[in-house]
Amino acid sequence: MNADPHPWASDLAGLYAQVWTRLARGVRDRRAAARHPTLATVSPTGMPQARTVVLRAADSVSGNLDIHTDIHSTKVKELRATPLAALHVWDGTAHLQLRLDASVTILTGTDVAEIWAQVPETSRIAYGSRPAPGQPVADALAYAKHPDPACFAVLRFHVLAMDVLHLGRAHRRARFSRHDSWAGQWLAP
Amino acid sequence: MNADPHPWASDLAGLYAQVWTRLARGVRDRRAAARHPTLATVSPTGMPQARTVVLRAADSVSGNLDIHTDIHSTKVKELRATPLAALHVWDGTAHLQLRLDASVTILTGTDVAEIWAQVPETSRIAYGSRPAPGQPVADALAYAKHPDPACFAVLRFHVLAMDVLHLGRAHRRARFSRHDSWAGQWLAP
Repeated sequence: MNADPHPWASDLAGLYAQVWTRLARGVRDRRAAARHPTLATVSPTGMPQARTVVLRAADSVSGNLDIHTDIHSTKVKELRATPLAALHVWDGTAHLQLRLDASVTILTGTDVAEIWAQVPETSRIAYGSRPAPGQPVADALAYAKHPDPACFAVLRFHVLAMDVLHLGRAHRRARFSRHDSWAGQWLAP
Repeated sequence: MNADPHPWASDLAGLYAQVWTRLARGVRDRRAAARHPTLATVSPTGMPQARTVVLRAADSVSGNLDIHTDIHSTKVKELRATPLAALHVWDGTAHLQLRLDASVTILTGTDVAEIWAQVPETSRIAYGSRPAPGQPVADALAYAKHPDPACFAVLRFHVLAMDVLHLGRAHRRARFSRHDSWAGQWLAP
């Protein structure tokens, strides 16, 4: 029998540390699983919604994550009505599912000027679509992209709790909460 | 310039057909992207929730999808309170994001006896955990799996609408709704 490829999964502190290792890798490495979480929100009519986003920042000290979006996107409307979200990552390399519960702050304007200044020119085209993202258009390509800092928003996720599942020789699942300082609790998978 | 690798993305009917082609492949092929959608629900306290699930059936005629679960899982509790869900797939091969809005019916007991009979012996272990999935346990491995047909539930997703995004040379996005017979409407991406 080979050595356990994921020894960190056997104790709560190791599992928790691995979550932030994976998230940090997602920010840095375009090919890491955590680069592209699925963001779940609730629409104003109560409909769950989910879409792929790009992870732009992860800070284990504050427990905050950032993504960037067009301020006119539907997810911003949803988060204005209900500023709660889940972020989901399945990391096949680590055999690890991350489910993060978060409250969300929408940052714009001067609050994000420094971040906008660091967005590469080629990426700015994602912020400033006419019509706005999700609006009906007469033809598939009847839209234009005009980079506009006034359209740029940072969604800052303040992680409240995490449900972490490791699918190893045995399956392990734990919940970590901000309110108990991330000590962790094993759950039946 | 090479030929367009995804000519089906250029018209609404082709894009719609491709959604069901990809979903059908997910049911059949363990390695297809649509094998493992992310299921988004809302908790009874209004918190969005998301987790990976396994796609077990996809019927383009009825517009229904099935997944299988343990009846004591948290997602069943959530769906009893709010029987609405989103299913999300990012298919990297097709450069295609699927976002499906659905109403959900929870089927159990004699209604699913025929489906249970077809679940392989080795897979039945996923239905019947003690304690129930998501319950606290004193140690990571302090749980047991006892296959139990009384724990087996089928979640049937009746798709109401789809938001489909294709990331090609140009990006295309469309919304398809049951109430207009899936005719489709282009949206700004």
